[in-house]
Amino acid sequence: MRNDIQRIAIIGTGNVGYHLSKAFLRAGLEVVQVVAHSERSAERFSRDVPGPVITVAPSLLADADVYILAVNDDRIDEAAEALNINGRLVVHTSGSVPMEVLQGKSSRIGVLYPLQTLLYGHDIDFHEVPVCVEAARSADARALECLAVRISGNVLRVNSEKRRMLHLAAVFASNFTYHMYTIAADILKRSGLDPDLLHPLITETVRKSLKHEPGTAQTGPASRQDLKIIEHHLTLLEDDKLFVEIYRLLTDSIIRHSKDKSDEL
Amino acid sequence: MRNDIQRIAIIGTGNVGYHLSKAFLRAGLEVVQVVAHSERSAERFSRDVPGPVITVAPSLLADADVYILAVNDDRIDEAAEALNINGRLVVHTSGSVPMEVLQGKSSRIGVLYPLQTLLYGHDIDFHEVPVCVEAARSADARALECLAVRISGNVLRVNSEKRRMLHLAAVFASNFTYHMYTIAADILKRSGLDPDLLHPLITETVRKSLKHEPGTAQTGPASRQDLKIIEHHLTLLEDDKLFVEIYRLLTDSIIRHSKDKSDEL
Repeated sequence: MRNDIQRIAIIGTGNVGYHLSKAFLRAGLEVVQVVAHSERSAERFSRDVPGPVITVAPSLLADADVYILAVNDDRIDEAAEALNINGRLVVHTSGSVPMEVLQGKSSRIGVLYPLQTLLYGHDIDFHEVPVCVEAARSADARALECLAVRISGNVLRVNSEKRRMLHLAAVFASNFTYHMYTIAADILKRSGLDPDLLHPLITETVRKSLKHEPGTAQTGPASRQDLKIIEHHLTLLEDDKLFVEIYRLLTDSIIRHSKDKSDEL
Repeated sequence: MRNDIQRIAIIGTGNVGYHLSKAFLRAGLEVVQVVAHSERSAERFSRDVPGPVITVAPSLLADADVYILAVNDDRIDEAAEALNINGRLVVHTSGSVPMEVLQGKSSRIGVLYPLQTLLYGHDIDFHEVPVCVEAARSADARALECLAVRISGNVLRVNSEKRRMLHLAAVFASNFTYHMYTIAADILKRSGLDPDLLHPLITETVRKSLKHEPGTAQTGPASRQDLKIIEHHLTLLEDDKLFVEIYRLLTDSIIRHSKDKSDEL
């Protein structure tokens, strides 16, 4: 029996549905149907991703080798229920939700989680995206791996527990850093300065962090424990209590980290 | 009277002294003397930056058009005092220290502040670095501008007050984001996962943030106000009180920011 995946159905036309469809089509795979949540999202999707048949949920589903639920975490259960196709491989794409949420929906369940910040319409090189696969049956895990390597050069098997830790780490590495940029831009705008001035600094900080062992290239007043500047910065921020708290807490954390590192030596 | 700067003396062989010397030499400027703090740092510097005369402080200074104090913030005063060259242009390179700290050290004072994370030996494209200049006399400000454009394509006049805000914003955009990467790597290492898995995510987050208006491309559980995942993440972190506090505070701040933005609409 051939168990490789040729025909793909995708439920969801949001950020993940958009990027997975594009990646599969680019790899020459057959996206036999995409299910949208509303007429409006179906229209937008068919304009942005020409090719696949787009239908609006609930609808009869085409015959496919895998049904990919690219929906919000809290809609996975409901979407899997609506599928009603036992015996076919059903996977979700969430970092935080365990595979077991699909138990009882089909005898063949799994997960295909792309570890990337995916924004609808903002194209990326999907080949670089780590894709984490998991399945209840080992034959399905192998089939998902074979599917994933068609769209990514970075495929790994990760169980639900580790996938959660990956997602948690991703919140720090992506969502929280992005928020730091927002605060920095906010500070400059309030002072009448152009936030773009920070671009070279932002780019270089990332370049530095990718090049060196994590945690070893920390710079700034906190890592120097320069209390005079730290106090002064807290004064400059005092109009915004939340920013003061963030500054203080991250400074404490950097200082603790520097101490831990010097204890190791 | 010609007032352009040809001959440069640099006091300090740390991160800033290293990068400024390299940039000036590359631009064909004359670095007539570099003053190190110790024999050891003088040796290292002369190996890494061949060319200039390196001496160990205190020492007689060569005749120069500008004396650049590339020393730690709390050593600026002392280093300026040691110079004892009234009537010559003396500048410091700090983001946080006002120009006035140099008052009384010379009749001609100023600041040349490179807005970048500078790590000794880690080479960068200095032409991209925003260089902020300030001087007490306008002729000196012009001369510093002319000097700065030799090494950077991004030169601007910034007074001490705005420079402080730039430095504060830089702490968020660089030092704090870098610390987020450290925490993320720490979480993965504790779970036996490879921190390098986050590299594509980190790169893409920056690409996204440089492309879109600050604050408009926030993703993640906080921006979706997905309380279920947020609570779950806090449980996963519970062994580390400081990480829990950071997660909670940044989540609150992202939620507040999302609300502020929707109020604007």
